[in-house]
Amino acid sequence: MEDIHYTCQWGTGQRWGDKPTETGMSRLALSDADKEARDWFVETTKALGCHITVDSMGNIFAVRPGLRNDKPPTFIGSHLDTQPSGGRYDGILGVTAGVEVLRTLADNWVETEYPVGVVNWTNEEGARFPMSMVSSGVWAGSIPLETAHNLREVGPNSTATMASELARIGYLGGVPASHSHIPMGAHFELHIEQGPLLEMSNKKIGVVTGVQAYKWLTVTVKGRDTHTGTTDLKSRADALLAASKMILHSHRLASAHSALASTGILNLKPGSTNTVPGEVTFSLDIRAKSDDTVAKMKELVLSDFPAIAAGENINGIQDDCTPGLPCTVDIVEDFDSPATNFHPDCISVVAQAAHSVLGRDSHNLMMEMTSGAGHDSVYASKRCPTSMIFVPCREGVSHNPAEFCKEEDCALGAQVLLQSVVRFDRL
Amino acid sequence: MEDIHYTCQWGTGQRWGDKPTETGMSRLALSDADKEARDWFVETTKALGCHITVDSMGNIFAVRPGLRNDKPPTFIGSHLDTQPSGGRYDGILGVTAGVEVLRTLADNWVETEYPVGVVNWTNEEGARFPMSMVSSGVWAGSIPLETAHNLREVGPNSTATMASELARIGYLGGVPASHSHIPMGAHFELHIEQGPLLEMSNKKIGVVTGVQAYKWLTVTVKGRDTHTGTTDLKSRADALLAASKMILHSHRLASAHSALASTGILNLKPGSTNTVPGEVTFSLDIRAKSDDTVAKMKELVLSDFPAIAAGENINGIQDDCTPGLPCTVDIVEDFDSPATNFHPDCISVVAQAAHSVLGRDSHNLMMEMTSGAGHDSVYASKRCPTSMIFVPCREGVSHNPAEFCKEEDCALGAQVLLQSVVRFDRL
Ligand SMILES: NC(=O)NCCC(=O)O
Ligand SMILES: NC(=O)NCCC(=O)O
Repeated sequence: MEDIHYTCQWGTGQRWGDKPTETGMSRLALSDADKEARDWFVETTKALGCHITVDSMGNIFAVRPGLRNDKPPTFIGSHLDTQPSGGRYDGILGVTAGVEVLRTLADNWVETEYPVGVVNWTNEEGARFPMSMVSSGVWAGSIPLETAHNLREVGPNSTATMASELARIGYLGGVPASHSHIPMGAHFELHIEQGPLLEMSNKKIGVVTGVQAYKWLTVTVKGRDTHTGTTDLKSRADALLAASKMILHSHRLASAHSALASTGILNLKPGSTNTVPGEVTFSLDIRAKSDDTVAKMKELVLSDFPAIAAGENINGIQDDCTPGLPCTVDIVEDFDSPATNFHPDCISVVAQAAHSVLGRDSHNLMMEMTSGAGHDSVYASKRCPTSMIFVPCREGVSHNPAEFCKEEDCALGAQVLLQSVVRFDRL
Repeated sequence: MEDIHYTCQWGTGQRWGDKPTETGMSRLALSDADKEARDWFVETTKALGCHITVDSMGNIFAVRPGLRNDKPPTFIGSHLDTQPSGGRYDGILGVTAGVEVLRTLADNWVETEYPVGVVNWTNEEGARFPMSMVSSGVWAGSIPLETAHNLREVGPNSTATMASELARIGYLGGVPASHSHIPMGAHFELHIEQGPLLEMSNKKIGVVTGVQAYKWLTVTVKGRDTHTGTTDLKSRADALLAASKMILHSHRLASAHSALASTGILNLKPGSTNTVPGEVTFSLDIRAKSDDTVAKMKELVLSDFPAIAAGENINGIQDDCTPGLPCTVDIVEDFDSPATNFHPDCISVVAQAAHSVLGRDSHNLMMEMTSGAGHDSVYASKRCPTSMIFVPCREGVSHNPAEFCKEEDCALGAQVLLQSVVRFDRL
């Protein structure tokens, strides 16, 4: 808990309560605040006897030697970057719990069979550079290094890229970001659930068996800039009106398909009260349990959005607006994360650890679950046995300054993490 | 035409054609480019024998003495600022035609009974500082100086105000911006129509009898930032989904009431692909022929938007979205311009001038009309006899880089302007 709150001096966000620690976080990837948190991670793990490797995505691997070093380390991984209006637990809990595992091993003179490592993955959130889990994605060979390096910061007039920001803060490492250069024996990740299921059912530990599927699209609608006072409704190609209809429609589709659809970014041009916007760009995040449902949602977006732009009434829904001139729409898929199943060995190691930590009543205090959010464990799982440990967070709220996880729950999660690593190391 | 295109070197915008002059303009009020255009206006009118006064809103009055100077000047007025993606004619035509009138009087040694002036009004567009016609509004005593000085630049993180930008570019004049300090005998304004009516009916001159009513509102919707992947649709307070429904509904209302409703600015927070936006702010520009209709539209917005935010279905319109948690909405009126009727004397002077310039076929080439857009003549008309002259623009498009007015139409408009001033001076 000390490490969590100490490191949250870098990028402190909005206050939600009176106590000193009752604030959110705003530590965008590769910002100055992120550099400070990284420097702390490097110094702290070095002091605990680790070797540090920084790769070409700025991922930082801290490895504590084992009795034998002829097999790859068992890794703990998560991320120190946050959302622009995020909390103190998402990602941060996972890294600081990893440091706590290293500290516990050191304090108790524990020697593991094989090395144990902790990795801080870069830009997991995808908030500043709009591709989540991008650096574990490069490490796994799923995302080309060049694509990642060229990712531009979110914002209408941004020029910073991942490569330029890595260089600027001094974390553009020389080692290739690749599982073949930095292999892992396993990857465990402790994380707040970010949803309400554990809290609602009074459980303490989630044994995570997989992650739902998702895709990120960028939608660009083009109409025509015109005067709001002199252009009658019939003569407008209003890109924002069309975009509003699309956003509403994406929610209709999600409702009909038990999926999720969300728009978190929207920029328009030219941005003047008395000019009908000629161009609107927005993000669309689509999620569902199965790849098929996400694919179906995308298919419907690809067929329905152009029809909405052209002014047609979709599915017989009359919007009672005067028809205007047609807009055009362009839809690009930026990111795709298919549904993920974690490794049975790691799942069962986490379950055993949870039973052991939770004691007699363990069956009532834990459950298997899938994750609604993506995590670096998704990409790690493509190259090594992987699983995750979830702990409850208040009201299931995350990506919000008021995100909160009780101290006792953080501690339980960290104990399960420690045991999982030690058990896997034996295995 | 030379002055138009020469001064469009300051703030040149997007290209739409091959010829050197075939670009739009992006000369926001009180920008560096606006300062250059202002300096040109001061130097040019000084060289034509004018006295210059700059008032506390940066309005620049250039006055050419008459035979007698015991009555206030007959003024020509318009503006040199443009939309962020505006054209070469909106406002610029009016000021440069005013300069051309001064030049024609000088070249021909014409002495008028009373002084003749040209005024460049500040921030007519309301694009950078979101209140249109604000500086003629202060001059007329309709808008408090302090309100205008404290207006903040559009944009989520802006700090510049009208006062700070006036000071920065050296146009914060010492003379009070007031009709009592700078009285006018009359105010004439030449402007492109910005709508399609003249072109569609093959007319050359619009004799403008008045301006429609409008109001500008700012709408702020508050929900809750949450994770897009872990928050089911029922548990979201999605400020952007609510705002999208409001924008759509404002168009429905406009369609039902023969009014206009337009959103040109929309900003959201926090702006991350995987965070449901907790806050959205957008502009709403409402216009109609009568004050009653604008008032009715506002009344409906004030009653319906909170209902939409609360998740109710308005007017029985089912949106087929899974109901979420309620959002709140706050609506502020920023600006109100009631319907305006110009002065019969000025209207008839413009009509006589148009008949004289257009010659034998004049009846077929001119028409009376009201303006869909606001103009500084609205506020001028509160303090002196006022009217306007419209000339056609291509396809009625304005607030767009491709805004275009034929040279011959600019020239006809300038001739009608000259005659109107001379006729009024005699009157
Ligand atoms: N855990 C988390 O918030 N990850 C961000 C990636 C996602 O959008 O799910
Ligand atoms: N003429 C013009 O575009 N004026 C801007 C004020 C308005 O919004 O009508």
